[in-house]
Amino acid sequence: MITDEFLKSSIMARRAVASGSAGRQHRLTIADQGDYEYVYGPYSNARLEIDPGDVVVVETEDAFGGVITSEDDRPTEKLTFPFLNPQCGPIAVRGAEKGDCLAIAVHAVDNRGGFGTTCLLPEFGALVGTSVTAMLNQPLPEIVRRVRVDAEGTHWNDRLVFPYEPFIGTIGVAPQLEAISSLQPDYHGGNMDLPDVRPGAIIYIPVHTPGGMLFVGDCHATQGDGEITGVAIEQPANVTLQVDLIKGWSFAGPRLETEDFIMAVGSARPLDDAARIALRELIRWMAADYRFDELDAYMVLGQVGRMRLGNMVDPKYTMGASILKRYLG
Amino acid sequence: MITDEFLKSSIMARRAVASGSAGRQHRLTIADQGDYEYVYGPYSNARLEIDPGDVVVVETEDAFGGVITSEDDRPTEKLTFPFLNPQCGPIAVRGAEKGDCLAIAVHAVDNRGGFGTTCLLPEFGALVGTSVTAMLNQPLPEIVRRVRVDAEGTHWNDRLVFPYEPFIGTIGVAPQLEAISSLQPDYHGGNMDLPDVRPGAIIYIPVHTPGGMLFVGDCHATQGDGEITGVAIEQPANVTLQVDLIKGWSFAGPRLETEDFIMAVGSARPLDDAARIALRELIRWMAADYRFDELDAYMVLGQVGRMRLGNMVDPKYTMGASILKRYLG
Amino acid sequence: MITDEFLKSSIMARRAVASGSAGRQHRLTIADQGDYEYVYGPYSNARLEIDPGDVVVVETEDAFGGVITSEDDRPTEKLTFPFLNPQCGPIAVRGAEKGDCLAIAVHAVDNRGGFGTTCLLPEFGALVGTSVTAMLNQPLPEIVRRVRVDAEGTHWNDRLVFPYEPFIGTIGVAPQLEAISSLQPDYHGGNMDLPDVRPGAIIYIPVHTPGGMLFVGDCHATQGDGEITGVAIEQPANVTLQVDLIKGWSFAGPRLETEDFIMAVGSARPLDDAARIALRELIRWMAADYRFDELDAYMVLGQVGRMRLGNMVDPKYTMGASILKRYLG
Amino acid sequence: MITDEFLKSSIMARRAVASGSAGRQHRLTIADQGDYEYVYGPYSNARLEIDPGDVVVVETEDAFGGVITSEDDRPTEKLTFPFLNPQCGPIAVRGAEKGDCLAIAVHAVDNRGGFGTTCLLPEFGALVGTSVTAMLNQPLPEIVRRVRVDAEGTHWNDRLVFPYEPFIGTIGVAPQLEAISSLQPDYHGGNMDLPDVRPGAIIYIPVHTPGGMLFVGDCHATQGDGEITGVAIEQPANVTLQVDLIKGWSFAGPRLETEDFIMAVGSARPLDDAARIALRELIRWMAADYRFDELDAYMVLGQVGRMRLGNMVDPKYTMGASILKRYLG
Repeated sequence: MITDEFLKSSIMARRAVASGSAGRQHRLTIADQGDYEYVYGPYSNARLEIDPGDVVVVETEDAFGGVITSEDDRPTEKLTFPFLNPQCGPIAVRGAEKGDCLAIAVHAVDNRGGFGTTCLLPEFGALVGTSVTAMLNQPLPEIVRRVRVDAEGTHWNDRLVFPYEPFIGTIGVAPQLEAISSLQPDYHGGNMDLPDVRPGAIIYIPVHTPGGMLFVGDCHATQGDGEITGVAIEQPANVTLQVDLIKGWSFAGPRLETEDFIMAVGSARPLDDAARIALRELIRWMAADYRFDELDAYMVLGQVGRMRLGNMVDPKYTMGASILKRYLG
Repeated sequence: MITDEFLKSSIMARRAVASGSAGRQHRLTIADQGDYEYVYGPYSNARLEIDPGDVVVVETEDAFGGVITSEDDRPTEKLTFPFLNPQCGPIAVRGAEKGDCLAIAVHAVDNRGGFGTTCLLPEFGALVGTSVTAMLNQPLPEIVRRVRVDAEGTHWNDRLVFPYEPFIGTIGVAPQLEAISSLQPDYHGGNMDLPDVRPGAIIYIPVHTPGGMLFVGDCHATQGDGEITGVAIEQPANVTLQVDLIKGWSFAGPRLETEDFIMAVGSARPLDDAARIALRELIRWMAADYRFDELDAYMVLGQVGRMRLGNMVDPKYTMGASILKRYLG
Repeated sequence: MITDEFLKSSIMARRAVASGSAGRQHRLTIADQGDYEYVYGPYSNARLEIDPGDVVVVETEDAFGGVITSEDDRPTEKLTFPFLNPQCGPIAVRGAEKGDCLAIAVHAVDNRGGFGTTCLLPEFGALVGTSVTAMLNQPLPEIVRRVRVDAEGTHWNDRLVFPYEPFIGTIGVAPQLEAISSLQPDYHGGNMDLPDVRPGAIIYIPVHTPGGMLFVGDCHATQGDGEITGVAIEQPANVTLQVDLIKGWSFAGPRLETEDFIMAVGSARPLDDAARIALRELIRWMAADYRFDELDAYMVLGQVGRMRLGNMVDPKYTMGASILKRYLG
Repeated sequence: MITDEFLKSSIMARRAVASGSAGRQHRLTIADQGDYEYVYGPYSNARLEIDPGDVVVVETEDAFGGVITSEDDRPTEKLTFPFLNPQCGPIAVRGAEKGDCLAIAVHAVDNRGGFGTTCLLPEFGALVGTSVTAMLNQPLPEIVRRVRVDAEGTHWNDRLVFPYEPFIGTIGVAPQLEAISSLQPDYHGGNMDLPDVRPGAIIYIPVHTPGGMLFVGDCHATQGDGEITGVAIEQPANVTLQVDLIKGWSFAGPRLETEDFIMAVGSARPLDDAARIALRELIRWMAADYRFDELDAYMVLGQVGRMRLGNMVDPKYTMGASILKRYLG
């Protein structure tokens, strides 16, 4: 849960139209949604229109569209490319236009149904040949794991319980002209698979098209750094988002704020470039808003910067570069 | 020019609906085109509908949309992202549907206007920091070169004349759901900047959406391997294409045939993965259509395979893997 | 400091020749050292020979060889390639031979002199063109920062004090035939610049040559993930190491154990491959010593694996893949 | 064969101590060699000392050390890491010292024995998981091909004969301090596997240590771009080299001259960086010796630069960037 104290001291509170105060509450159910979206683009109709500050509870389906229901399922028989990673929305925010930024406070990500699903998919993952890192080796076998998820955590097996640390795998806005697969992260957010996008964080994403057009989906109950098998503990979830609007604040890609740190997010291949994008963007943020000289910011990050690997399996890999607020002066 | 002899012995002749015979001739002028397209997607209206085998002369604008007209222009003042690399089309091909493949014979790429333009753009190019390989160094200066292009070649300066070796920088089809920037190459073709896409070649691109929806633009008068400054000798051109349709032939990305060789094209970052995609696809082609065992094809390419660098500056880099027909048995 | 409890429960205690018990104490002073070493190779004479379990206090010089003594110094005038990153040792361990593994418990890294030095070097760092990621942009200016280091921390300026979190930047053994620059990390350890190599950790490195031949140097007072400027808070230090020997335990690269987790380390370019090496090695470790099925280990790391970026500036980049011991069953 | 006309107009003729004139002839037989070398380092004894301009015929063994003699051999049983890719030499050149450059004209690479050998090795090659691009997939099977090599070419099978296009896979000098595996290419030359290092070319390699210390081995009868299986048609050969010395000419890595073009060679991972090294070095060469402005050279290479893929399988990948002499003015 996001704390009131943080919310009131956040950038969202200081700069957004609704000052970080919660407005009306909406619900976007799966029935409201109708067809899911599989690309982040400006060609979709808004399913909901809200005012800055409004709170929306979105019912999301898991990344498999809910079709994998048993450990005996074969994912390659159940899944149909490119209809993977179904997204809810888009949600239009009144007054949002290019040059602005959506501020999205994540209040909650609540598992629906008491279970989560993960699997090994052929030609997908960090340690196997893929359609991009194309190899001639035989693929690994398909394996499905369907596990209990409850207050105690994610029950991997009799011995191992992993913490329930839910977050949003895929969230972002519509690009201006492009329609980007929901499997891909980039400057618009998208499939970042970054565990920091969790309850307690505020995400800032630049707007490219009228209304901003917010999409969300793909919640995870638990995930390691890199999501190395390509699949986390995927879960259907109810996601509670407070969506505010900052006029006239724009930058190169997603940013994130928590009680303790600020983070810039980069997505690219190879990982080196994802890191570079994130780092340069964080340096520029420190220079613009925290009175650092750019080269001093660079040297400070050299000593206390932190790097978080989001995913290294999606069409672009994601890293977050962060600095503790205590070093921002 | 494509030779008759090659055309008659080509895959297009053997497998396409019109057997590689030229049908009706069409013209898609800039006036017909109206607004240019800046994404390759299924959301655009066809500007022209043709039958398999028809020939189309497309008037294309240069990659700058024709706005750079003097060496005193500053590109950063004239160009407006994302409205770069304007594309003509899409052209719908009757009967084309997912699972098929367009066969596009390039008959001619004719310079219009007698000049070509190239430049150095800040943060664009293989040897400078970019928005992806993000650096803190200062960018290089902007430089525009506008040069005469005629039968003799591309007149770089008093001393240097480069050969006029025109080709199509950007050509491809609409993806099923995605709308991909015209700056980017991928499985759908797009901004490959591969000099082999020249008069005399036939390009095969899998269809993802009804009509195939062919886009084309961005012709180059001359370009080195890698297009390392990010900008070739850009020229407005008349492009003559014979567009045929092969039913029920589909694969992972663009393929190319000339009198002498067959080539598979891969686009990815880093370059290693572009090469891998191209190589694996060529191996699969050799195994499917030329009776090679897959591992034998791999070993044969180890000894006589050829790699061509298309671009290493676009959002994805492009390589072509080819083998001479004489080694195909 | 390493706790007794951890030391007694460690792999070192269970498998090493001296069972993790401390033997004789040695000191390798700068005077004893004489000439520093600048490559990790089998061609250097041992400066000290010890028994398994012996404790050595090594006086190390900073990565600049101590020649940068003022913020007015210009590093490019003071430093002479390839005589950078001076190393102490090698230390021969009696009985060590190829197929064995050195177990090195880091007891302490103590700053000598009360200061630390960092700088911006031209063409070195993660966000600038380098000799490898070769660019045409002008380099950044040289900047030297010489800062007070004391119990309170690293005093960056009047406002900012960073924690004193010392560790060993460069440590490793001699390869069998190669002599590897002390600037480079690889299978032998070397310049990993991984903050986890800190007091409280035990490092396991496979032996390639008689005596193992342990080198050490390049201690850091403070460093962020990635050491992105290429230079941490470099300090001369006294390093206290307990060096034990595990017979007949060998693997692909450095491993690390702390009270809480085990980690495998990979060094490569691009970062993707550093991550892959580390992850595969951790999976193999879990399969060999912790009774995981290899694919189950892969899937478990997908959910609770952790990735730590060491450096992304050296000739190879370094990542550590780790798992908390509590998930090892 | 290198033509007299080229030799007389070459950089070697204009700048080297012996002006490109052939001196005394030497022979370095396998018997003279004694033990092969497996690293390029300054720690080896010269097997031969020559004057600038002298010609040496070196008997080289194939990359397997000659131990694979039948298609029934299993390479993993016959080969012992790190004793792979045996090198002959080093040959000391009188008067060579750091800051100079060896100029090596390749007169001939003659097959010895009438056969060549290639194979698939587990975890080695461009399209399989390796020790660096570490994967969990099962390796491909081991396959050995031993083929006839004669005047007609390389006889792959009854249908396919590949051209005999012999070149030197591994050639270079000793680094100053490092000893680099003969499997790896870098600034010193080494295992570049670049087909342009063939009879008719002159190679220029900067000297790092007294005598230069020239190593050579690993000749190939035929090889495709990228040497994608990791193994070309490996052959024992007699290599005829004319070795001259250019005083006071030094640069970042190997360069190459033929009758038609000049080339700079870069080795790195990923391929992008190999290309960048090669390109920047070629630009610097054009600026230093051919009166180009650096940015003009960059733009000229953008239009007529050529890239050749050497290998993408060795510990570093190799690319050559070249420009035709006719564009050098």
